[in-house]
Amino acid sequence: MKIWDKGIAVDKKIEQFTVGRDRELDMYLAQFDVQASKAQASMLAQVGLISAAENEQLQQGLAELAAQIEQGTFTIEESFEDVHSKIEYYLTEKFGDAGKKIHTARSRNDQVLTAIQLFLKDYAERAAAKMLALVDVLLRKAEQHQLDLMPGYTHFQAAMPSSFGLWFSAYAEHLLLDLALFEAAHTMADQNPLGSGAGFGSSFPIDRAQTTREIGFGSLAVSSVGAQMLRGKTEKTVAFALAGAAATLSKMAYDLVLYNSQDLAFVELPAAFTTGSSIMPHKKNPDVFELIRARCNALQGVPNTIILATNNLPSGYHRDFQILKELLFEPLTQFLDILDIVLFALPELKIKPNLVEQAKYDAIFTVENINQLIQAGVPFREAYKQVGRAVEDGSYQPHREFQTTHLGSVHNLGLADIRSKVQQFKQRSRLLPG
Amino acid sequence: MKIWDKGIAVDKKIEQFTVGRDRELDMYLAQFDVQASKAQASMLAQVGLISAAENEQLQQGLAELAAQIEQGTFTIEESFEDVHSKIEYYLTEKFGDAGKKIHTARSRNDQVLTAIQLFLKDYAERAAAKMLALVDVLLRKAEQHQLDLMPGYTHFQAAMPSSFGLWFSAYAEHLLLDLALFEAAHTMADQNPLGSGAGFGSSFPIDRAQTTREIGFGSLAVSSVGAQMLRGKTEKTVAFALAGAAATLSKMAYDLVLYNSQDLAFVELPAAFTTGSSIMPHKKNPDVFELIRARCNALQGVPNTIILATNNLPSGYHRDFQILKELLFEPLTQFLDILDIVLFALPELKIKPNLVEQAKYDAIFTVENINQLIQAGVPFREAYKQVGRAVEDGSYQPHREFQTTHLGSVHNLGLADIRSKVQQFKQRSRLLPG
Amino acid sequence: MKIWDKGIAVDKKIEQFTVGRDRELDMYLAQFDVQASKAQASMLAQVGLISAAENEQLQQGLAELAAQIEQGTFTIEESFEDVHSKIEYYLTEKFGDAGKKIHTARSRNDQVLTAIQLFLKDYAERAAAKMLALVDVLLRKAEQHQLDLMPGYTHFQAAMPSSFGLWFSAYAEHLLLDLALFEAAHTMADQNPLGSGAGFGSSFPIDRAQTTREIGFGSLAVSSVGAQMLRGKTEKTVAFALAGAAATLSKMAYDLVLYNSQDLAFVELPAAFTTGSSIMPHKKNPDVFELIRARCNALQGVPNTIILATNNLPSGYHRDFQILKELLFEPLTQFLDILDIVLFALPELKIKPNLVEQAKYDAIFTVENINQLIQAGVPFREAYKQVGRAVEDGSYQPHREFQTTHLGSVHNLGLADIRSKVQQFKQRSRLLPG
Amino acid sequence: MKIWDKGIAVDKKIEQFTVGRDRELDMYLAQFDVQASKAQASMLAQVGLISAAENEQLQQGLAELAAQIEQGTFTIEESFEDVHSKIEYYLTEKFGDAGKKIHTARSRNDQVLTAIQLFLKDYAERAAAKMLALVDVLLRKAEQHQLDLMPGYTHFQAAMPSSFGLWFSAYAEHLLLDLALFEAAHTMADQNPLGSGAGFGSSFPIDRAQTTREIGFGSLAVSSVGAQMLRGKTEKTVAFALAGAAATLSKMAYDLVLYNSQDLAFVELPAAFTTGSSIMPHKKNPDVFELIRARCNALQGVPNTIILATNNLPSGYHRDFQILKELLFEPLTQFLDILDIVLFALPELKIKPNLVEQAKYDAIFTVENINQLIQAGVPFREAYKQVGRAVEDGSYQPHREFQTTHLGSVHNLGLADIRSKVQQFKQRSRLLPG
Repeated sequence: MKIWDKGIAVDKKIEQFTVGRDRELDMYLAQFDVQASKAQASMLAQVGLISAAENEQLQQGLAELAAQIEQGTFTIEESFEDVHSKIEYYLTEKFGDAGKKIHTARSRNDQVLTAIQLFLKDYAERAAAKMLALVDVLLRKAEQHQLDLMPGYTHFQAAMPSSFGLWFSAYAEHLLLDLALFEAAHTMADQNPLGSGAGFGSSFPIDRAQTTREIGFGSLAVSSVGAQMLRGKTEKTVAFALAGAAATLSKMAYDLVLYNSQDLAFVELPAAFTTGSSIMPHKKNPDVFELIRARCNALQGVPNTIILATNNLPSGYHRDFQILKELLFEPLTQFLDILDIVLFALPELKIKPNLVEQAKYDAIFTVENINQLIQAGVPFREAYKQVGRAVEDGSYQPHREFQTTHLGSVHNLGLADIRSKVQQFKQRSRLLPG
Repeated sequence: MKIWDKGIAVDKKIEQFTVGRDRELDMYLAQFDVQASKAQASMLAQVGLISAAENEQLQQGLAELAAQIEQGTFTIEESFEDVHSKIEYYLTEKFGDAGKKIHTARSRNDQVLTAIQLFLKDYAERAAAKMLALVDVLLRKAEQHQLDLMPGYTHFQAAMPSSFGLWFSAYAEHLLLDLALFEAAHTMADQNPLGSGAGFGSSFPIDRAQTTREIGFGSLAVSSVGAQMLRGKTEKTVAFALAGAAATLSKMAYDLVLYNSQDLAFVELPAAFTTGSSIMPHKKNPDVFELIRARCNALQGVPNTIILATNNLPSGYHRDFQILKELLFEPLTQFLDILDIVLFALPELKIKPNLVEQAKYDAIFTVENINQLIQAGVPFREAYKQVGRAVEDGSYQPHREFQTTHLGSVHNLGLADIRSKVQQFKQRSRLLPG
Repeated sequence: MKIWDKGIAVDKKIEQFTVGRDRELDMYLAQFDVQASKAQASMLAQVGLISAAENEQLQQGLAELAAQIEQGTFTIEESFEDVHSKIEYYLTEKFGDAGKKIHTARSRNDQVLTAIQLFLKDYAERAAAKMLALVDVLLRKAEQHQLDLMPGYTHFQAAMPSSFGLWFSAYAEHLLLDLALFEAAHTMADQNPLGSGAGFGSSFPIDRAQTTREIGFGSLAVSSVGAQMLRGKTEKTVAFALAGAAATLSKMAYDLVLYNSQDLAFVELPAAFTTGSSIMPHKKNPDVFELIRARCNALQGVPNTIILATNNLPSGYHRDFQILKELLFEPLTQFLDILDIVLFALPELKIKPNLVEQAKYDAIFTVENINQLIQAGVPFREAYKQVGRAVEDGSYQPHREFQTTHLGSVHNLGLADIRSKVQQFKQRSRLLPG
Repeated sequence: MKIWDKGIAVDKKIEQFTVGRDRELDMYLAQFDVQASKAQASMLAQVGLISAAENEQLQQGLAELAAQIEQGTFTIEESFEDVHSKIEYYLTEKFGDAGKKIHTARSRNDQVLTAIQLFLKDYAERAAAKMLALVDVLLRKAEQHQLDLMPGYTHFQAAMPSSFGLWFSAYAEHLLLDLALFEAAHTMADQNPLGSGAGFGSSFPIDRAQTTREIGFGSLAVSSVGAQMLRGKTEKTVAFALAGAAATLSKMAYDLVLYNSQDLAFVELPAAFTTGSSIMPHKKNPDVFELIRARCNALQGVPNTIILATNNLPSGYHRDFQILKELLFEPLTQFLDILDIVLFALPELKIKPNLVEQAKYDAIFTVENINQLIQAGVPFREAYKQVGRAVEDGSYQPHREFQTTHLGSVHNLGLADIRSKVQQFKQRSRLLPG
């Protein structure tokens, strides 16, 4: 059944091409389409476009569908082109005319868009909760390893003494920062497009402020033309957020792959997290982190693909937007899976002791040697030259004792300050409802 | 002069390749390096690393440089590899040892990063102000043209009656939404990395909270490792913001190029905004809007290029980050130029009257015909079929009279609601200081 | 069963994450893994690493597998992590030691890589054949519509008389040109990596020239390090080829979507190729072409995603490469599907007659008016100004009669020349074996 | 002077925005515009559109311009919008009417396009020559270091013995392979668009086959519509070629940066190729290779930006294409600069001896231990397990003696085979004229 069916047979091959993977991908949207339809029906009743009795029927039917979705028994059969056809069919089968009236003053365009907005808003909140859980794990690891020193690298060269405390807390702060893009995505998703019809509104006396309140949208996308322009834009902004956080996780994974090499050997991954080689029995390959890295890198390409698919189209709906579900929904799931794996793996990570005592890292203490000279009154530039000469002529002796005091340094991680930033974020962000 | 000069001659060709366009691009950063250096000197004095007298000298020297920058007389000569070398040289020439001490407890890494953070924070604020000015122009145009109807398109097909009021207000709302990404960028740029040194802090007893306050950063990037990881991330987030707004402006330009064709002929561009053809004397090409579109489309590629240049690098500084200035700074200027051109062009735009009265657009009123039938009691699906048949058999008569009431529709643009959203944004956003 | 199984239980969740969709995607590779394994076994026998009898067994077992794959009965059960484990298991179950020996002097790395190379080489040939079929359809349409004039557009403005003959033949020539990138992809895929092991060769006395000949590779990837570096590179080059051809098809689809609008109304799409609107009964939306456009645009993002996933990795294998199958294999199928749809749709396309006789297109004949003046002796620049003035003051009369003579113009499409280019290509290209 | 000047003052700001950096970028095109103009004039004379005397004048004027360009005295003053205006002005000033007639049967569109095609064709040839020079250097380094062993890495883990011979020859083969994309780009650039006018041909009796021959294009872009569609496509294909080779160079640079770390310490870069740190006197940072890597990574983003700027535009010229010069021309120069630096740096590279004798690399010989067992009759899978157990329980003793025989392995680099592939390429490729 297609609601635009005008009795002309559409070639099977074409149909398959146009429907694509909609049935499968629409399962993500089912609960949100029901949620918006309930508000739509209430509002139609309120403004007199349907009767109270009709509304009651629709509310009941939609509640049944919500229960099916919740219980995992809801399906979209081959005979329906999408979730929306299925829901309307269910209501019409059950209540006849009342079912047909749910589509009054609504177009497929604003209906789909509303469900997508709600889905992505919900997704941003769920992703944020998981990211904050990871921030918490990272801060606990930072605390646990605050005195585990490691060489800090610049230009891939061992440069100065650093620590796993600094390393873990760095990623905690960055994931927190990454939530700023999720907030932007949430802002886009929190606009109510319902009632904008095909992008030009309608002459029905609907009350868009009511559906905004009832569905729980933070704001109304006022201009009907503008409401339709959200299609693709919210998806893209969610993809920006994913790309931002994925970059952080990719970098963390890169570090760990490197730290797991025989050359650095800073960490030990539990056997369960490594795989072997078909020809080299000594290999314990960090495949999990390599795959996290690779997937996170591919995720960083999602915004660009969305832009390519939607760019240079004038305002107004185009069927092109349909493929955004394919481009975005699977990456959304992948990102949550990656967070799960990292949440699972990080607590198991073992740090090797006494890393900076290896002779090959002697030179990372040159800055400490310089600082010692400075504290003895030698100007910086001269101390720098003096120590440089010692390194050159082989007379250099590392000054291994050092004590830092400033916030964010080896001996003062400032974890309380970071935790306070997390707390402030939790208190004010719209990503954390309730 | 290079501060890392160890007396070994670096081949000229290599030097040119490594310095790149730094001198030119560093002019963007000069005022911000001076601003951060002033706070650094004050803090060094406060914690006793330099004397009060030395601080006074440094403050005076930096004030002189600030004045030169302000007056446009500041230059970075060929003998300096970057702005930071020049500033340090100026202070050292003038005050000897005191000048050298400005670099105490600071690395080139956190120094450059701090200047970039401040520059991008300032940029986000300036861009936001210009975008809000454009929102205002768009809302005034929406008001002016609220009853100028045009066909609304879906699938490139004339679909329903729309209006220039809806069109202008759509872009106003979207530019306002685009500021959500600028807020995310501002959040990244508002983190103070000063004191993180080369990314691992130092053993100097510096006070990072003081520089945060004095420079006016909203937050401290606590972990020194994390602070260094801002390099590339802030740039990328600003690029996301640019890409988001550029997509909106590109779409607007695409619409106008299309509306300017002989086939649609919805708008008239003033002669000053068009160019001709070398062989076709009748052409009035909408080059300005084509170039806005093209540049906005290229801007949407900037985040991806930044990702490519910085991705898959482990934590810690890499020289790779240097090219971010080349990749981002010119696009930043281009975006402001585009906003200027649009601000300049839009008020001049002329809308053609009576567009929807052309016979080719008759069918855009089918929805009104259907709604009339619905109001007469015919269920939606049946009304839909009835009007569909009339269109097919040629008996269709457009129902041109229509009156919309809901928010965001032709006859109720809801401009007051949009203006109130703008007002709320202005009141709460950190993008608008003061 | 995992061939690298060292008896340590790998957590289920991790396993799922690392295996990913390999079983499903490896079905593309099965026949090619069998093909390469046959050559590997022969060569091992030839150099004496296995016995002639063992080789016979392996040839028989592999022939059985090839038959299963051909008949569609081959499966990769859940107990195998990939196609290679399954094949080796089959041979080992059947022949014991002989089965185990197939992996002599071969690593999983060169085995997978060889199968992918063969698959992509075959794909490039199949895609090329389909593209050439489309070139042929386009040339026939060009012939059929060589006198069907339409306005030619520049800057979205009707500019000069053009024709569907020129339009169809343009796309024919471009698809032919697009094959140049498929040739480059074929060159990459035509390098034999077998025998390079994990990327560093082996001390077995294998004969790589023999496997190159027997498998039918055009060239040997000599350096074992270089052979391994093909991973990702061949995929990327195939993606470049896809992106190139997709851009051509996207542009064609864009044209058709535009030509189908009420404003231009140049073409008529058969009802079977259009879909309707849920609220506007007059709509015949060109969804098929919009989806072709969208998918072709998304395909243009594939190279970038592959680059993101593989860039900034030092030489040598990384597990990251595994996700290339996910990133590329589905797009490969989509591209063939799109070609099928276009091959199916184009012959049905109807061109509307007498397009350029509409008054709104009068000005497209200004160039003819100018040329007439030039032939009467007026210098070009003066003729240009004269006609320009006539257009401005409304006195302009279009000179509709025109006759072109040069190759590639309305009245001389040069189809024979284009066909001769196609013929030459077919004769010399490695994309067309036999 | 603008040739489309209709006497209407175009606002200065708009003009600046539309002209952009054309004057500067057009210097790349000057010689090619002259070259094509000479052929155009000859052909016009041949078919009788200008007199023999006029042609003589034009040939003389164009030869003068060619000499100026050659000598570096040619300039495009502020009063001209581009190189084409300047050249036409020069001819008209000098020869009056004859100068004006050069533009007969030519549009700015095909004129610009022809110059770009010639420029990019020439560029592809120049880049190929430089890449082949680098292939040669790499093969000589491979020969020089064929017995310098190093650990071969997979998953960032030392895996098996490899050598700098394999490493250098790998990059030699890959740069040779990268030329396949340059050949594709050359194919696109080798199509003659001259005579296609604004994309729809003209009614002048021009001879396009003659200009094709005279200019030296390999093929005629027959359909005038198709000829215009080359704009953007050739640029994109050149960008694909750049991206392909840049990926190879980026990987090489990544390897070298890593090999230069204290942890691996495989190579030594001459002091002239490193820079220091402002706070760490021991640092010898591999900045040159980091910048090569970064620029090569940014180059890989160029195709995507070109796609973004030109995608989703219907056929026909759009002003958007103008910005392609900005997007591509600077990267073209950068790529040649990078090749120069690499050509300059590689011969200076020093390889450290005895790398694989370090105890941390003992396990890279497990494969040799296994092979020894296999040669003693133990089946592969069992030998694998046996050596694996030895590694686990600490009893493992590396079998350091090994001798490889197959092509592309440590002791048989197959340099002659690679050189023969280079030779074959040189003989048949159109990239190497003459």
